[in-house]
Amino acid sequence: MAAAYFENKENAEATFELFVRNLPRDRSYLIAAGLEQAVSYLSTLRFKKEHVNFLRKHSAFKDISPAFFKYLGKLRFRGELWALPEGTVLFANEPILRVTAPIIEAQLVETYLLSTINFQTLIATKASRVVQSARGRSVIEFGGRRAHGPEAALLAARASYIGGCIGTSNVLAGYLFGIPTYGTMAHSFVMNYETEEEAFERFCRTFPSNPALLLDTYDTINGAKKAVAVKPHPTLVRLDSGDRYELSSQVRKILDNANLKRTRIFASGDLNESILDDLTSRQAPIDSFGVGTELVTSRDDPALQGIYKIVETRRNGELSYRVKTSEGKRTLPGAKQVYRSYDVDGRFEEDLLALAKEKGPTGSKALLVRILKHGQLIRKLPGIAVSRKRAINELNKLPARFKNLWSPEPAPVRLSPRLQRLSESLWKNPQQRVAQN
Amino acid sequence: MAAAYFENKENAEATFELFVRNLPRDRSYLIAAGLEQAVSYLSTLRFKKEHVNFLRKHSAFKDISPAFFKYLGKLRFRGELWALPEGTVLFANEPILRVTAPIIEAQLVETYLLSTINFQTLIATKASRVVQSARGRSVIEFGGRRAHGPEAALLAARASYIGGCIGTSNVLAGYLFGIPTYGTMAHSFVMNYETEEEAFERFCRTFPSNPALLLDTYDTINGAKKAVAVKPHPTLVRLDSGDRYELSSQVRKILDNANLKRTRIFASGDLNESILDDLTSRQAPIDSFGVGTELVTSRDDPALQGIYKIVETRRNGELSYRVKTSEGKRTLPGAKQVYRSYDVDGRFEEDLLALAKEKGPTGSKALLVRILKHGQLIRKLPGIAVSRKRAINELNKLPARFKNLWSPEPAPVRLSPRLQRLSESLWKNPQQRVAQN
Repeated sequence: MAAAYFENKENAEATFELFVRNLPRDRSYLIAAGLEQAVSYLSTLRFKKEHVNFLRKHSAFKDISPAFFKYLGKLRFRGELWALPEGTVLFANEPILRVTAPIIEAQLVETYLLSTINFQTLIATKASRVVQSARGRSVIEFGGRRAHGPEAALLAARASYIGGCIGTSNVLAGYLFGIPTYGTMAHSFVMNYETEEEAFERFCRTFPSNPALLLDTYDTINGAKKAVAVKPHPTLVRLDSGDRYELSSQVRKILDNANLKRTRIFASGDLNESILDDLTSRQAPIDSFGVGTELVTSRDDPALQGIYKIVETRRNGELSYRVKTSEGKRTLPGAKQVYRSYDVDGRFEEDLLALAKEKGPTGSKALLVRILKHGQLIRKLPGIAVSRKRAINELNKLPARFKNLWSPEPAPVRLSPRLQRLSESLWKNPQQRVAQN
Repeated sequence: MAAAYFENKENAEATFELFVRNLPRDRSYLIAAGLEQAVSYLSTLRFKKEHVNFLRKHSAFKDISPAFFKYLGKLRFRGELWALPEGTVLFANEPILRVTAPIIEAQLVETYLLSTINFQTLIATKASRVVQSARGRSVIEFGGRRAHGPEAALLAARASYIGGCIGTSNVLAGYLFGIPTYGTMAHSFVMNYETEEEAFERFCRTFPSNPALLLDTYDTINGAKKAVAVKPHPTLVRLDSGDRYELSSQVRKILDNANLKRTRIFASGDLNESILDDLTSRQAPIDSFGVGTELVTSRDDPALQGIYKIVETRRNGELSYRVKTSEGKRTLPGAKQVYRSYDVDGRFEEDLLALAKEKGPTGSKALLVRILKHGQLIRKLPGIAVSRKRAINELNKLPARFKNLWSPEPAPVRLSPRLQRLSESLWKNPQQRVAQN
């Protein structure tokens, strides 16, 4: 497509928006995440000589003139980026990113932007559900080995932290992103020694300040009985299999009877928001959770269907609005802004989706902020700790009916009258010229 | 755990195996993939100075002696790796990798090996299902934007190719891995021009050798009528929404009536093996498919539950077998080999899972091959084209009852009598010493 635009001397500037038409199962909100990686990509985008040479020899380009490949070698992203800050709560059809650039630049970045925003937003959202189901107990992202590759493991750790986890078991994510890291021991440590007692003693002596023991390598209750006899005493014990409600109750008694009242119980092993909801509503004596596979793959709905659609073009100063009217896939025209209104108690009331040039309702907050101008960063991105706090604050302001874990109410997102009229007119006749600017 | 082993002067050599206990939904086989990335990781593993400094300051390590961090700085993987070649068909409980190394080295690599093998094996397997459902029509991986991040998009393209796709829309995967790349146009190209006709004409003139047009931006049937009027004629048209059976039949007629009998029809848009099975069994006139989201996320079951378990240790020359007996999670002891037997017609008959030191049945094939010795590559890995051919050949040898898309029969995997006896004895008493070598 870039070659076709180039060969046709297309000089339009285009605006694309990245948004999600249908939310994943049982979600009525999303938590925006991935902006930092998107900005880093746009800021460093270039085709190296070896890339250009690869394309030049590709059979798809045999009809294309040499000038195009020269152009590619010099291409940089010089456009404008507006975005929801990471940690922002958003709803269906609201733009997460808005890109305005010469059309080739705006088009080429589609796949990368979608893959990083879709995934991190998916996982931050899933994390917020898991954290909610923990009812105040801590949740640690524990799923590196089941993520979709090593980079997905890192990005999942990052997004989970933004979505409310207190940390990760991924030490590289700690190093790269400053996320707190946690770990216990694996079954292999216990299995390596002749007896469970020997493994426990060696581990506790190695980490006297904060020893954490895994109890279920052979039998959880026997493991607990051995754990309380070890010195220094474990400060945490981990249950990784079996009926976590029953076992945690029994293990709590064993710990209490041995006067280890301050030793905490940590549960892991194929957990998700449904299991946590059950365990915490029945007040299982579990102090914190490690959630892996289900969190890092968003297993109940593992794909966020974000799309990146052209909404307007400007050619020789003339603005044209753009819509698609494919069956079940029609889009809203025009560069847009999201205006959020709150009630007198500061709780979320509704969003207004309007053209970016419209003013928002009195007291409302414009959610999309400008990040890049002429390809340059004009606003330092906050660290992920700030994004995490934003998510927690915004979720606190969101009424419970939009946050129910199952079948939540869709949140109210109105279209401005002007956007509504424009959309209806274009859906009827998508290729009309719209004489306004 | 590495610190605990180090501080306890643990000098055991350990053998770990990576395998899958429970296969994903509706699968009774897997296609091994990801070995190339696993080998590259093991060959280049090191802790840089900045990594060691990060760990030194981490609160988890405050009880650990300075010698450990010095050790980490010098650590290299010096062990042995056995693996199923990429593209090998395998079943539940069969090792995909077997690692033997000083226990710290063997342990540290767990998460990376799992994340790359789990994901690529998951996707190669999913691809083989989608390709099977296409009944000889070509399938192209089309899901970069919905993969779990940019690296997952690349690895999914790679694994899909091994699993039988003919290529990918991910151009970087073409550049990095030599996978054939394909593409058409996006809706935005049509939307950018005042009329669909103008967009079609410009695109076909730019790529006269092989123009491919997307028909459904506004209305598929109208799009088809416009497409047949364009010169040069399109060689391919793409349907991305709506009832693909009905639309392909109508579009085929429009093409044939315009004497464009050689113009092929390509379908995309939320396809999976269930939809393809339906379309191809009804002989929809579709020549090839682009499959995205469902393929690159293995959406019907997005996590391969591969695990990495210690199976034996050798300490001062003495061999000990290791098992875990956690509820629902018990393991088989000992370094193992998989012996595959075929019938007189060369079709798969059964696998025997035996201790590596046992001989296989006459005429059987040992599937695990040695890749690294003392950390060095001793066998050049074949390119992915070879792995892809291996997968296709092995699937051809696999009887249909093991390949049914829904509720396939589990394939016969027997334990050798010796492995069976050893396992039962250890499950009863996991911490016994086993006096054999």
